[in-house]
Amino acid sequence: MSRLNAAVVGATGIAGQQFLAALADHPLFEVTHLAASSRSAGKTYLEAITTAAGSTQWFCTEPLAPRFAQMTVIEAAKLDAHEVDVVFTALESDAAAELEPLYAQHVPVMSTASAFRMAEDVPVLVPGVNPQHAPLIRQMQAERGWQGFVVPNPNCTTVGLVVSLAPLQQAFGLDSVVMTSLQGCSGAGRSPGVIALDIVDNVIPYIPKEEEKVEAETRKILGTLSGGRITPADFRVSATCTRVPVLEAHTESVFVSLTRPATVEQVSAAMQEFGSEFTGLGHPSSPTRLITVTADPFRPQPRLDRVVEDGMTTTVGRIRACDVMGNGVKYLLVSHNTKMGAGKGALLMAEELVRLGYIGA
Amino acid sequence: MSRLNAAVVGATGIAGQQFLAALADHPLFEVTHLAASSRSAGKTYLEAITTAAGSTQWFCTEPLAPRFAQMTVIEAAKLDAHEVDVVFTALESDAAAELEPLYAQHVPVMSTASAFRMAEDVPVLVPGVNPQHAPLIRQMQAERGWQGFVVPNPNCTTVGLVVSLAPLQQAFGLDSVVMTSLQGCSGAGRSPGVIALDIVDNVIPYIPKEEEKVEAETRKILGTLSGGRITPADFRVSATCTRVPVLEAHTESVFVSLTRPATVEQVSAAMQEFGSEFTGLGHPSSPTRLITVTADPFRPQPRLDRVVEDGMTTTVGRIRACDVMGNGVKYLLVSHNTKMGAGKGALLMAEELVRLGYIGA
Amino acid sequence: MSRLNAAVVGATGIAGQQFLAALADHPLFEVTHLAASSRSAGKTYLEAITTAAGSTQWFCTEPLAPRFAQMTVIEAAKLDAHEVDVVFTALESDAAAELEPLYAQHVPVMSTASAFRMAEDVPVLVPGVNPQHAPLIRQMQAERGWQGFVVPNPNCTTVGLVVSLAPLQQAFGLDSVVMTSLQGCSGAGRSPGVIALDIVDNVIPYIPKEEEKVEAETRKILGTLSGGRITPADFRVSATCTRVPVLEAHTESVFVSLTRPATVEQVSAAMQEFGSEFTGLGHPSSPTRLITVTADPFRPQPRLDRVVEDGMTTTVGRIRACDVMGNGVKYLLVSHNTKMGAGKGALLMAEELVRLGYIGA
Amino acid sequence: MSRLNAAVVGATGIAGQQFLAALADHPLFEVTHLAASSRSAGKTYLEAITTAAGSTQWFCTEPLAPRFAQMTVIEAAKLDAHEVDVVFTALESDAAAELEPLYAQHVPVMSTASAFRMAEDVPVLVPGVNPQHAPLIRQMQAERGWQGFVVPNPNCTTVGLVVSLAPLQQAFGLDSVVMTSLQGCSGAGRSPGVIALDIVDNVIPYIPKEEEKVEAETRKILGTLSGGRITPADFRVSATCTRVPVLEAHTESVFVSLTRPATVEQVSAAMQEFGSEFTGLGHPSSPTRLITVTADPFRPQPRLDRVVEDGMTTTVGRIRACDVMGNGVKYLLVSHNTKMGAGKGALLMAEELVRLGYIGA
Repeated sequence: MSRLNAAVVGATGIAGQQFLAALADHPLFEVTHLAASSRSAGKTYLEAITTAAGSTQWFCTEPLAPRFAQMTVIEAAKLDAHEVDVVFTALESDAAAELEPLYAQHVPVMSTASAFRMAEDVPVLVPGVNPQHAPLIRQMQAERGWQGFVVPNPNCTTVGLVVSLAPLQQAFGLDSVVMTSLQGCSGAGRSPGVIALDIVDNVIPYIPKEEEKVEAETRKILGTLSGGRITPADFRVSATCTRVPVLEAHTESVFVSLTRPATVEQVSAAMQEFGSEFTGLGHPSSPTRLITVTADPFRPQPRLDRVVEDGMTTTVGRIRACDVMGNGVKYLLVSHNTKMGAGKGALLMAEELVRLGYIGA
Repeated sequence: MSRLNAAVVGATGIAGQQFLAALADHPLFEVTHLAASSRSAGKTYLEAITTAAGSTQWFCTEPLAPRFAQMTVIEAAKLDAHEVDVVFTALESDAAAELEPLYAQHVPVMSTASAFRMAEDVPVLVPGVNPQHAPLIRQMQAERGWQGFVVPNPNCTTVGLVVSLAPLQQAFGLDSVVMTSLQGCSGAGRSPGVIALDIVDNVIPYIPKEEEKVEAETRKILGTLSGGRITPADFRVSATCTRVPVLEAHTESVFVSLTRPATVEQVSAAMQEFGSEFTGLGHPSSPTRLITVTADPFRPQPRLDRVVEDGMTTTVGRIRACDVMGNGVKYLLVSHNTKMGAGKGALLMAEELVRLGYIGA
Repeated sequence: MSRLNAAVVGATGIAGQQFLAALADHPLFEVTHLAASSRSAGKTYLEAITTAAGSTQWFCTEPLAPRFAQMTVIEAAKLDAHEVDVVFTALESDAAAELEPLYAQHVPVMSTASAFRMAEDVPVLVPGVNPQHAPLIRQMQAERGWQGFVVPNPNCTTVGLVVSLAPLQQAFGLDSVVMTSLQGCSGAGRSPGVIALDIVDNVIPYIPKEEEKVEAETRKILGTLSGGRITPADFRVSATCTRVPVLEAHTESVFVSLTRPATVEQVSAAMQEFGSEFTGLGHPSSPTRLITVTADPFRPQPRLDRVVEDGMTTTVGRIRACDVMGNGVKYLLVSHNTKMGAGKGALLMAEELVRLGYIGA
Repeated sequence: MSRLNAAVVGATGIAGQQFLAALADHPLFEVTHLAASSRSAGKTYLEAITTAAGSTQWFCTEPLAPRFAQMTVIEAAKLDAHEVDVVFTALESDAAAELEPLYAQHVPVMSTASAFRMAEDVPVLVPGVNPQHAPLIRQMQAERGWQGFVVPNPNCTTVGLVVSLAPLQQAFGLDSVVMTSLQGCSGAGRSPGVIALDIVDNVIPYIPKEEEKVEAETRKILGTLSGGRITPADFRVSATCTRVPVLEAHTESVFVSLTRPATVEQVSAAMQEFGSEFTGLGHPSSPTRLITVTADPFRPQPRLDRVVEDGMTTTVGRIRACDVMGNGVKYLLVSHNTKMGAGKGALLMAEELVRLGYIGA
């Protein structure tokens, strides 16, 4: 079977590079187009990411695939979407708002940008979590007159939270959630990102707009699709988001009030079993478990657990009863913000949308 | 007026050094005795903290006072408490359980150890927070037949929490508290403390026994003394305690349910006004404000705010409404674990106990 | 005696803030003018450094003096130098090249910028190291027709090196120097400076232009003034400059070939005695020792030694014979790059130039 | 062909774990025995590395092979060396001095300990660097009456240095070497290793005994075997060894005086070509290049380059002329201290000794 042609837009930035790392030698998708700003257009990809001083700005631990290095970068605004079967975009929000609809007129667009997340005809899809929202894609196509569509993945801090909450919602119901995040620096990107003078030996207690995103996206992703719209879930979420001196992966301290009482063992079992149907599909980018529950009281740790399952599993530990929240349970989780929470997560969702017939059909 | 004679026990360890840094040139107390283990006994203090390789193990940023450097260290078990007016102890819990009663038979003992914190006739006193518990000292003396007493300060993670909660309790009542801590490494000491291989680029999500201490101590400190016993406050506390790559100071993300509703402005005002009577006493180790409320959304930060008021104020920021907790408010705080949370906090309490007639009378 | 009026130009940036921290309550200089870019002009200083989101961008550990906070910032290009007795500039090199001559036509300019360091009629003055170069100021004034002058301080990496080499040059002669630096992040400033994703758990082995600066400046500062020009010293310097995950202070590993043999004890003594005449002058910003020699084999350490003497002393340790270099000696030093190596070093030099009659006469 | 039976001694410590990570599914060696202290004996390996609190102390990023997890640990002193074909030891120096001769009476012992490195009948073998020293093994066997032998690998700081110097010695001759190391924390192990309070935001300028080891081992490894003894190479080495806040990999700043002049291009070419004969053998643990020369001026960086070729290549960059050293050249290198510099380096050497007939013949 021949592979689907894919474009990566915003390919030179760090988020675009994460797409390239995930797409190297992919069995379903062949990257045929690399697009970026006009500044990079016309150069080979390697030239585009190499500074005048000769420094190659490739930021992934996976080596840059030689094939990508030699491809010529085109300008994002000039990408002819007809030439590909799917577009993966890693754009800033403003650029995404402008460019993604141009592509989506013709082909599916899998996006890491926030531009369309809260649009009422757009589902925010998380692999294995809310497949029931996928049909909203057809509504979007009908309303907008698009042949393609835009499916954004959520904010990187939302991903681990919704993965861990979904089995609790299904098994016990959710009443409310209190969450404090300890986020890694890579979430802030590199322009300029978090500077060392601010974060070494320090915590930054505020990430603008992050808490609002987490609160709104969580309720949307775990909400109900009916009548062509998603009704947000009716539990409440209160988040405090902080930055810590960690390079990659977000740690989250979660306190949950369940609708129905559950023991620690029941909570643990629900998490461990969650998503087995999805992981059983064996998608190329899929982890073997959506949630890895650890019994080690000193885990999860971001540096140790972000490498498990190539960053595609959410590791949960220290599940305990909480006697403040009603039917309360508390735990910590680690989620890889630039794997499951970024390009590779979007890629896994694309793999599932191929299976479901939304991409490449 | 002549100064009171003071002994520092456990003087060579990091916690003891913090006492010495706080006690250098103190107007009320003159350190006349330095005590440590038998290994150090008979040496000058400088010799005792200098390794065979010639490295001086003095860990405070304040320089070691030359006077202390030349004092001869005595063995803790042989300290004759009759020779001093007060003993400051910085011992491990087991040693404290054994030695502090020996001293307390004769003189007041101000302790950073946990050994007696949960004893029912022992108050855990926090400067400016619970002076109404001080009379329990007389009960302790009567029941134990001691001329002196033991007053421990709380766990370093408890201190900032109770300082920030006290004004809320007084003004609005407390229903429940959810707290996630991001603790600095100095709280773990140096034997071996937190090793770099564990904490660099990482978070450790568990500190054994810490959550239990915070939950129990908070309710005791904010409880009610009557009939010679303290009844713990009846609000509930749920804590998750983590370690982050920060050298000093603990950051805490707090979610509170108040008994009576309060606006963000009212909460802020209550905190800012808290303790003005106490700070107005002008104790030598006192900050000018027990709580410093910051309007900068990017504060408090442990590296920046731990130096404010020499680590004796609790900095609170990002006060916001929380719609998960009933009558909810959330905020972050930074508290200096080895200043207000350790020796200098115990010293400030001692200054107040002099004023109240419990020490040196 | 009335104080001299001083302007600080580039006052809102991190280097300018270091000037303000050093100049608060200064006995010789009164800051009467604060200048910055047109973007800040017309605002109070506090407004100028506060973001729209309400975050105050003050980066020094010393608190911002209330008096400075309320001063109105003027535009650097519009500063009337006649109104002050001295200008302290903390500008980027390009701006310095343009603005410093305008001020220097009228008054002395003490600069942290590199723009004029290699001009042949400009001395690079280091407090206590090369007072014999000060007379070149008169040459500069004569040749340029200026009433004032520009005196730059050296690159922050050069400062500690020349302070440590000067006594060796004087006592034993210098044949050659091999140096590897481990530099703190603050040397790169904040725009964007060193980002956490690059430096946490890492070393960056290259700082553009730094090695060339160190090599040329060292030879100039330790060179000979005669005939109205400085002949660089004839020893050779080979440097490799790296960045390490340290916030402040530069560590340097130095290997020296002396002209005449010297024992470790002689080298140590020469360093300890160095500059006593200068420090004996008791300038307000002066350390009590230009060089602090430590016998502790585990020192100097940047985090511990940068606070000694408020960052104005150079700490040298591990002095040993080196059998590769001829008459070889090797040692490590720590120098505070944003104190002695920046504004406060320039201020100390200004204090000396007042004494010598170059400023305020 | 059946695999050789191998024992790993000191298997529960961090150095032993690195052997296990390297030996999982190895085509030549089958781990049949795991040995450690009496405290671990009788337990399964997983039990032996799991604390009472349920925390698994496995420190490698590679997962623990299930097969090893279930093996029963035996006491090192009771290992019957007859049962295996080779022993890999990861012992502290004192234990190595005692136990390694017991094993070596019967079988080859590949060791990461320093105990026998300076013994005159023992070669310190580095893969691809000094195969000409291997025949000293026969001398050792003859003199000591052993059927086996001990081959230690060098100190982890020595490894990268000798790999980079060997091609220079061969092509141009070596006159002298000046080196400053910036070493990662993993080199200090975990008992207690480097504590966070010492190294975060800091540099430690001294590692006891490290400089002496580097100086002596380098000259031995690059020395000449004749008459049954190794004459150390006659160039001089002067090292300063420091610890920096890096988890893994050592960075070294090297200044070399060559016997014969060479251009930067010639030096670079010599390094790039070095060891191609050895790497061409395709040993299972071999990198494809012993030295990776980078033209990026911002490389090598320990965090980025330690992952290249699974830590088995030495990355060299910033090759420049040095005008202080005679025929001088300077460069930086990164070497992975716990891969090529520890167990996996010893394993690669074992693979070569199998080929040469010293093991398993």
